[in-house]
Amino acid sequence: MKILVLNCGSSSIKYALYDMDDRSVMTSGGAERVGLDGAFVKVKMANGEKKQIMHDIPEHTEGVKFIFSLLTDPEIGVIKDLKEIDAVGHRMVHGGEKFNKSVVLDDEVLKVFEECSDLAPLHNPANLKGVKAVSELMPGLPQVGVFDTAFHQTMPKKAYMYAIPYELYEKYAIRRYGFHGTSHRYVSKRVCDYLGVKPEDKKVITCHIGNGGSVAAVDCGKCVDTSMGLTPLEGVMMGTRSGDIDGGAVSFIQKKLGLDADGISNLLNKKSGVLGITGISSDMREIDAASDNGDEKARLALEMYNYRIKKYVGAYAAAMGGADIIVFTAGVGENQANMRESVCENMEWMGVKLDVEKNNAIHGEEAVISAPDSKVTVVVIPTDEELMIASDTMELCGK
Amino acid sequence: MKILVLNCGSSSIKYALYDMDDRSVMTSGGAERVGLDGAFVKVKMANGEKKQIMHDIPEHTEGVKFIFSLLTDPEIGVIKDLKEIDAVGHRMVHGGEKFNKSVVLDDEVLKVFEECSDLAPLHNPANLKGVKAVSELMPGLPQVGVFDTAFHQTMPKKAYMYAIPYELYEKYAIRRYGFHGTSHRYVSKRVCDYLGVKPEDKKVITCHIGNGGSVAAVDCGKCVDTSMGLTPLEGVMMGTRSGDIDGGAVSFIQKKLGLDADGISNLLNKKSGVLGITGISSDMREIDAASDNGDEKARLALEMYNYRIKKYVGAYAAAMGGADIIVFTAGVGENQANMRESVCENMEWMGVKLDVEKNNAIHGEEAVISAPDSKVTVVVIPTDEELMIASDTMELCGK
Repeated sequence: MKILVLNCGSSSIKYALYDMDDRSVMTSGGAERVGLDGAFVKVKMANGEKKQIMHDIPEHTEGVKFIFSLLTDPEIGVIKDLKEIDAVGHRMVHGGEKFNKSVVLDDEVLKVFEECSDLAPLHNPANLKGVKAVSELMPGLPQVGVFDTAFHQTMPKKAYMYAIPYELYEKYAIRRYGFHGTSHRYVSKRVCDYLGVKPEDKKVITCHIGNGGSVAAVDCGKCVDTSMGLTPLEGVMMGTRSGDIDGGAVSFIQKKLGLDADGISNLLNKKSGVLGITGISSDMREIDAASDNGDEKARLALEMYNYRIKKYVGAYAAAMGGADIIVFTAGVGENQANMRESVCENMEWMGVKLDVEKNNAIHGEEAVISAPDSKVTVVVIPTDEELMIASDTMELCGK
Repeated sequence: MKILVLNCGSSSIKYALYDMDDRSVMTSGGAERVGLDGAFVKVKMANGEKKQIMHDIPEHTEGVKFIFSLLTDPEIGVIKDLKEIDAVGHRMVHGGEKFNKSVVLDDEVLKVFEECSDLAPLHNPANLKGVKAVSELMPGLPQVGVFDTAFHQTMPKKAYMYAIPYELYEKYAIRRYGFHGTSHRYVSKRVCDYLGVKPEDKKVITCHIGNGGSVAAVDCGKCVDTSMGLTPLEGVMMGTRSGDIDGGAVSFIQKKLGLDADGISNLLNKKSGVLGITGISSDMREIDAASDNGDEKARLALEMYNYRIKKYVGAYAAAMGGADIIVFTAGVGENQANMRESVCENMEWMGVKLDVEKNNAIHGEEAVISAPDSKVTVVVIPTDEELMIASDTMELCGK
């Protein structure tokens, strides 16, 4: 069974074609600058070779069409006919309270998804465009929606409600939703397979730390809390996002700088986080290097970054009555050993004992990095949201 | 030595006169509705009797003057002559980064304090009015300022910085300050005296839970983190304050309701928290009763309230590398046994084992409420900010 995974953002379209017989990626790539000047598509071919192709992409349908043409391209394509594709799985951002699992997309489902757009006005319409483009180009091809928020829908009300007037929840659905759900679901499940234990017995803390970052508490396979909220701004410190901040500071800054709601949102989402503190970059590799070279603000940013993850680990252990497994995943989580060390340092009180040498050796591969006598098992699990989307799609459309 | 403690708010003046020879309160009370119609003063007399006196109080000097007259009043007074007062200690709210301990107030100090007004525009000017009123009425009487923020000034930078553009810290001093510092200082010190241990050996988590609430991590006698931030809005859920909330939700609400910075600040500070969720009250005693009567929102509010404190306990144990002592204090912390039970429930993983029966019996008195074999000692310590202010004042003005 061949499944195409699509992730349509406001100005980008990422894709991967899976052969689900052996769960291998046949080809993958992405269109950038959709709707802007200078659009291009990067393709990773079956033989591992990479290509960049300039191509004008005025809007999403055109982009999907061009990606389809690349899949069957005589030179760089991997299939002969688009009919070989059995189904398309879409990454969809905000399912609100409407979707607690992946679903086959039909008109009714899409209508409900559109109602959630209010909660993600940039992302949901772009996701929808991708679905409609496929419908137009390949009518009748089964499509599945996999939501970033769905895995977190098991949170209890005490975890997802904000302490604001209750009618704001009733009228506008303002509450914690959480994001990166597909990743948290994948790694919390995968880590149990990897360790040969049952999810139903385990309290797992999953740290998805990339350019965006979130931590989740997964008790018996179900998410019970997560650090991102109504929006992906809340929680740990991120590349350009502030993470947690005093609501009183938000209005204080607005008044000082004369910013309206959009202005402060822009400042906290795009000019804050690691970039805001260092003024150098939002990329933790560059910050690591700058810190090594003695840059004081880079050092501070690293300390803040790690400290905030550490506090979430403590908070979620409290939320679950302890922790059995801590997982690190995503760009930073899989690769930055010093972040993992700093988060796990001085955590013997809760049964965490890192194997520092082992930790230093692990980059982007599955491995236990805690000491054999650590009560809490600390594990690196590279995330694979695309595979999860392909798997869900296969399951829902499988013959 | 007789010391008058004054706490001047924007429309209230609380006072207590201490005889520091035996640390007893000779009389105490407070003026309410200062500057408003229907002002009155409540007095608790030496014999325990209470009186309420209607008296027009157009502004703070007049209020302080009237309080002075009550202290020497032939019928309800406790001293013959104001000259018996040796010094006045003021509760002062926001000392910014300028004050890390209590200080004798002189012109220079007051000038620096005025510079902090920007950070607490309602409270600091009121505090200042109290100081000036005393100077006017009793020139030359020594006065001391005790700051709500001072105890938290030992926090490391990784704990007090927000992940926002660094220049917002440099230009506007936007950072975490924390409040209730005098209370956290008092109970973290007092609990060690009470248990006969040295603060320098101990990791203490202090939960000051009243109508306002904050949690602090006190390592070796020094505050290393606290839940309130630039303003007293951040942190745990409070009577009418939201506590922690997604910064993205703040701007989302603003746009939905068409609120400016002052409007959202008002909503989050005065219409949220326990009151916002329940629509009933901000008073936890009433919420407890409503929950017992089956009110769903009251039950939810209690669950959220306790859950958020529990997460801070876990986070601060992580911050310090464990915890030796947990202290509950202030109105709710001293009196609501069910809150304490809920916070400590299912916390054996970090060495907390409550003596449930003992806990249920304790209201407003010093007591250990953990089991004898609990690794973490859980203690109720009634707070006494006034006594702390009087002690600091005596120390700084002592003959």
